[in-house]
Amino acid sequence: MEKIQNVYDNADFFAEYKSMRDGKINANELIEIPIMKQMLPELEGKTILDLGCGEGGMSQYFAEKGAKKVVGIDVSSNMIASANVQNKHQNVQYLQLAMEELPTLTEKFDIVFSSLAFHYIEDFDLLIKNISNLLNPNGILIFSQEHPVTTATIRVDGMAKYTEIDGKRYYFLSDYNNIGKREISWNIEGVVKYHRNFEVVINAIANAGLMILEVRESKASPEAIKLVEKYKYQKDRPFFAFFKAKKI
Amino acid sequence: MEKIQNVYDNADFFAEYKSMRDGKINANELIEIPIMKQMLPELEGKTILDLGCGEGGMSQYFAEKGAKKVVGIDVSSNMIASANVQNKHQNVQYLQLAMEELPTLTEKFDIVFSSLAFHYIEDFDLLIKNISNLLNPNGILIFSQEHPVTTATIRVDGMAKYTEIDGKRYYFLSDYNNIGKREISWNIEGVVKYHRNFEVVINAIANAGLMILEVRESKASPEAIKLVEKYKYQKDRPFFAFFKAKKI
Repeated sequence: MEKIQNVYDNADFFAEYKSMRDGKINANELIEIPIMKQMLPELEGKTILDLGCGEGGMSQYFAEKGAKKVVGIDVSSNMIASANVQNKHQNVQYLQLAMEELPTLTEKFDIVFSSLAFHYIEDFDLLIKNISNLLNPNGILIFSQEHPVTTATIRVDGMAKYTEIDGKRYYFLSDYNNIGKREISWNIEGVVKYHRNFEVVINAIANAGLMILEVRESKASPEAIKLVEKYKYQKDRPFFAFFKAKKI
Repeated sequence: MEKIQNVYDNADFFAEYKSMRDGKINANELIEIPIMKQMLPELEGKTILDLGCGEGGMSQYFAEKGAKKVVGIDVSSNMIASANVQNKHQNVQYLQLAMEELPTLTEKFDIVFSSLAFHYIEDFDLLIKNISNLLNPNGILIFSQEHPVTTATIRVDGMAKYTEIDGKRYYFLSDYNNIGKREISWNIEGVVKYHRNFEVVINAIANAGLMILEVRESKASPEAIKLVEKYKYQKDRPFFAFFKAKKI
């Protein structure tokens, strides 16, 4: 395994990230989180593990909705510190822990949740196996990641993401089946994400003894498009993919 | 439901199709069928329904591999006539029947198979429900279809499928989440296919009481690329998607 990536503890990255997220007018708040909430099972009385919990927004939400116990883990000490200030709750415990270190956890959970964090992890098969081991029987895994059609394309320097022909937008697509590392510039240079296609994601889930219940691909609501017009292009190339599966 | 499409009984279409398929140097023979064969479960002693069996190549293959009984259905009388000449086998029965007419079948099967036919069907949810009703417990559904990234894009008249920048090929992608009819020119004008994304396909399978076992996205083997160089672009934009699921 390569060194565990912890870009959120890079000071420049974290400052940029904070200013984007705090604005609330972003794709997470307007597109991703609403779909995740629609996909959630009943939370009342459940134990929940939140992987890559960040500042703890969803961990606290679960507790407010009746979860008995929530454990939020994140590799970044910045995030865990921020979570303990901003989203403190008596039923929530935050731990600084990388997703690669899941086997150190000993208890099992009813729900494992992760919002936009899995595309940072190199060994996806192992991650899903480790999660399956942490789920109670009939436990639910629910996660979002960047959509394969969004992570796929390897562009040449300075090249745009799309072109327009007769007023219609067309995104450039390449390397869909070319699984692996994508180094991108996002807040800072050299953030590493891993592109995976549906084959890799779904087969990892099926092979770990989980049954797929639902897949979603991001759309923007009319309200979101009113706030950020370019979100209408989710119709052409979705940002996010969502997966829900049950331990059998 | 719209009128059932039966383009293979159009004389011009069928002549074009025959000359392409008979050549054996095509994406079905070199890319699609090899992957389908890898995904097949044990066939010995099984009963198999082949949906959109065409000229019966796979139906006969199943019988040769030990299937006890194979029923091949196709909407096209041209195809059924051809199957009865070219791929006759004592364990295979060919029927002229549209996939929309599946509820008229009364027996159940161990395996339901379909090669590149489902994208012609408008009501996919109903199709998968009807198939689920025809499967024995633990029965297997296995099918291929055109890949969503290949069916998605709605191009303006005469527009190319891709562009090249610095010697690298980029396909144009639009309308990925814009589910529905695509009228294309393939052998003749006005062939209707239905674009569906992974969300629609996977959720239909899950909602019909089937458990996803495997998803594949087409790659070309080195041997196939030696015969047809452009198949190397399967890496950038796969032609086909494959799904395998089990009745629970």
